[in-house]
Amino acid sequence: MHDVRGVLCNEADERRIAAGAERRGEVERRRKMVKPKYSLWTPGPVDVPVELLKEMVSPLVYHREGAFAAIYRSVVKGLQRVIMTKSPVYVLTASGTGAMEAAVANLVSPGDKVVVALAGKFGERWRELCIRFGGYVDELVRPYGESIPPEELERKLRTNDAARCVFATLTETSTGALNDIKAFGDICRRLNRILVVDAVAGLGVDELRMDLWHVDVVVGGSQKGFAVPPGLSFVAVSPRAWEQVERCRGARYYFDLRQFRRWEEKGQTPWTPAVSVFYALDLALKRINRKGVIQVWRARKAIAEFVRGRIAAMGLELFPQRPSNGLTVIRMPEGIDGTKVVDYCKVHHRMLFANGQAEMRGKVVRIGHLGPVTKQEVTKALAAFASGFRYAGGRGR
Amino acid sequence: MHDVRGVLCNEADERRIAAGAERRGEVERRRKMVKPKYSLWTPGPVDVPVELLKEMVSPLVYHREGAFAAIYRSVVKGLQRVIMTKSPVYVLTASGTGAMEAAVANLVSPGDKVVVALAGKFGERWRELCIRFGGYVDELVRPYGESIPPEELERKLRTNDAARCVFATLTETSTGALNDIKAFGDICRRLNRILVVDAVAGLGVDELRMDLWHVDVVVGGSQKGFAVPPGLSFVAVSPRAWEQVERCRGARYYFDLRQFRRWEEKGQTPWTPAVSVFYALDLALKRINRKGVIQVWRARKAIAEFVRGRIAAMGLELFPQRPSNGLTVIRMPEGIDGTKVVDYCKVHHRMLFANGQAEMRGKVVRIGHLGPVTKQEVTKALAAFASGFRYAGGRGR
Repeated sequence: MHDVRGVLCNEADERRIAAGAERRGEVERRRKMVKPKYSLWTPGPVDVPVELLKEMVSPLVYHREGAFAAIYRSVVKGLQRVIMTKSPVYVLTASGTGAMEAAVANLVSPGDKVVVALAGKFGERWRELCIRFGGYVDELVRPYGESIPPEELERKLRTNDAARCVFATLTETSTGALNDIKAFGDICRRLNRILVVDAVAGLGVDELRMDLWHVDVVVGGSQKGFAVPPGLSFVAVSPRAWEQVERCRGARYYFDLRQFRRWEEKGQTPWTPAVSVFYALDLALKRINRKGVIQVWRARKAIAEFVRGRIAAMGLELFPQRPSNGLTVIRMPEGIDGTKVVDYCKVHHRMLFANGQAEMRGKVVRIGHLGPVTKQEVTKALAAFASGFRYAGGRGR
Repeated sequence: MHDVRGVLCNEADERRIAAGAERRGEVERRRKMVKPKYSLWTPGPVDVPVELLKEMVSPLVYHREGAFAAIYRSVVKGLQRVIMTKSPVYVLTASGTGAMEAAVANLVSPGDKVVVALAGKFGERWRELCIRFGGYVDELVRPYGESIPPEELERKLRTNDAARCVFATLTETSTGALNDIKAFGDICRRLNRILVVDAVAGLGVDELRMDLWHVDVVVGGSQKGFAVPPGLSFVAVSPRAWEQVERCRGARYYFDLRQFRRWEEKGQTPWTPAVSVFYALDLALKRINRKGVIQVWRARKAIAEFVRGRIAAMGLELFPQRPSNGLTVIRMPEGIDGTKVVDYCKVHHRMLFANGQAEMRGKVVRIGHLGPVTKQEVTKALAAFASGFRYAGGRGR
C-alpha cells in the first residue's frame, strides 16, 4: 500500500495523472476570476473592509496554545460587549444556520413543545430545525413583511404552558422586518419561558441588549453586521438557558455546547476553529467596541433612514411594516420585475442587490447596508437602483 | 426600541460605552500578537504557504451567484481528483469533526448496529459520534500505536451481520499509525458493508484511492495535507452510501447531505460557506493536481522516510507499528518527558511540535510533516528536536 510508484495505478489513474500535468498558466488565469465583478449590496455577506481581509494573511497560531487563547478570549469579550451580556458566548466554526442548529440541538429534546414566532424564511428555518430535532412546534405565523405583535406572542404563550422555549428573529432578512425583541423578552420573563433570538442579520446593526431585555439565547454570524468573511458564528447562553441545555436529551456532538463550555476555560474550542476568520473578527469587534456599539447602531440607523427617505422620494413602498436598519426591502410595483432590476445593476453598475427568496423572487429588491458603508457609497447604490428600476419599466418621480 | 439615543441606556451600558472609547493604539498593538512566535510542526493545522494566505485577501463573491459556483465546482473537481473518485464531494463549513458528524448523522439511524475499528483518539471519536447519534457500536479495539489487522476486521464483520456501516481511520493522528484501507475496502465490498474512512489527516499525504479501493465515504479537512487554513471539510459519498443516506432517520439539518446534494446542482452550498477559505483551497488543490496527487504522495513519503531515518539514527523508536507519511510520532524513552522537549523547542527554536494527547501526554512527541515542507526545513526541525531531546535528559547517539 505504501509503494505508490505506479504499482497500484490503473489506466484511469494514469489518465488522471496526465491531466494533472497542467500548465502553470491555468492557476494564474484563475486568480483573476476570484476578483468579484461587483460590490456586495446583499444583506450579508457584505463587502469586507480591506484591513479585515488583510488580517487573514497572518500565519496560523496553533489552536491548542496560548496565542490562540488570547485571541479567543478577546473575541469572546468583544462579542459580549456587542451583545450586551455577561453570559458566555461560544464561537462555532459554521455559518449562522450552524449556530441556529446549536441552539435547537442543545435546548429541544425529542418530544418537547416549543413556540416559534415567524413571518419569513428565517423564522421558518427555526420551525424546520425544531421539527428535525424532534420538537412539537406551536407556531405563531404572520404574513411576510409583518412583525410579530408582542400581544399575540403573549396570547400564544398563555395557551401553551408546556412550551418552555420560544424562538424568534430579530431581523428577518427575507422581508427586512424587525421584531420587538424587548417586548418579547418582557413577556417571556413574566411567563417563565426561554427566549431564543436569531440575531444573525441584526447583530451590531439593530438594537439588541441581551441581558437588559431578558433574552436567554442570542445567535449571530461573522459575515453580517461585523463585515467579516463567513465561517464563524456564535451562541450566547444565559444561566437560565444553561439549565435547559443540561437537561436536553437531543443528539448533538459538533454543536454540543457542553463541550464548548469545557474547552472555553482554556480559551479553546473543542474542534479546530477557523483561525484566520478569528483574526478578522477580532479586529472588527475591536473597531466596533472602540466606538461603542450604541454609536454603531446610531450610524447604521442614520444610513437606513437616508435610504428609506430616498426610496419614499422615488414613490416606492417598503415591504416591511417595521423596517430593520440593516437592509431595505423595496416592494416592486405591479408589473415591475425585481429580477430585472437586480440583473441590470449587477451588469451595468457592478453592484449586487439581492432578489427576493423563493416565492418572493421578483416581487421585492433587497438592499443590504449592514456593514460600515458611507452615505456617499449608499447614494451611488441608490442611483444604480433607480436606473435599474427605470430599465425594468418603473417610473421614478 | 428604535430610538437608541440613550433612552434605554442604563448605568452599566454607559460604563460599557465609556470603556469602548479605547485608544487606537490597542488595535495596533494587538496586530503584533497575531504573528505567531513559532512555525507549526504540529500534525495539522500546518503552516500555510503565503500564496495561499494571500488568496484570502480577495473580496468576497456572493455565494448565490455564478462566480461562487465556478469556484465551488473547481474545488469539488479538485477534491475528486485528490480523493480519486467519481462520486460527489460535499464541502462543509466546519472542522473535520463536523464532516465526521455529517457522515454519522447521515448514515446511522437510532438503533442501527455499526462497527468501529479504533486504535487512537480519532477512532474513539467515531465511536463517540455513533453512540451520540443512537448507534449500537460493536468496536474492534487495538492498543494505541497499532494498526487494525484486516483479518480481525473480517472476523468482526462475519460475527456481526447486522452492522451495515464500518467506520475506520486512514491516518490516526494521535498515534501516527496508518491503516490498510485497501484491505478494509476489499473486505467491506465482499461482505457488503459500507466503509466510512476518516481521512482528515491523511488526505493528499497517505495513499488513498476511494473508487479503486471500494471506499464508500471519505471525510477530509482543509488544514491538513492541503496546507489551507481550517474552516472547510468534505465528505465524498459513493452511490451505495447514498442509498443508506436516503434511508437514514437520524436528526440532522446543518449537516444534512440531502440538502447539499440539492444545492450542489447550482454549484452552491445550502448555507453560507466560508468563501475566503474556498479561495485558498482552490489554489491548493490546483497545485496538488498540477503535480498529480501520486507525485505528492511520493514527495511526502520521501520526507517521512528521511525523518524516520534520522529518528532511528538517534537511537529512538517510533510509536506506531506502521507509520503514516504525514507525521512521525516518537516514543520517549523511560524517564524523558516529551512535554519538556515540546516546550523547549517552542521557546528556544520557535518550532511547535505536538505533545501526546490526554493519557499520551509526555510519552510521545509528534512531528507533523503533512504540508509541502522541504528536506532543508525538516532537517532544521530535526536538529531542534534533537537539542530539545538532549535538554530533557535524552542521550542521542
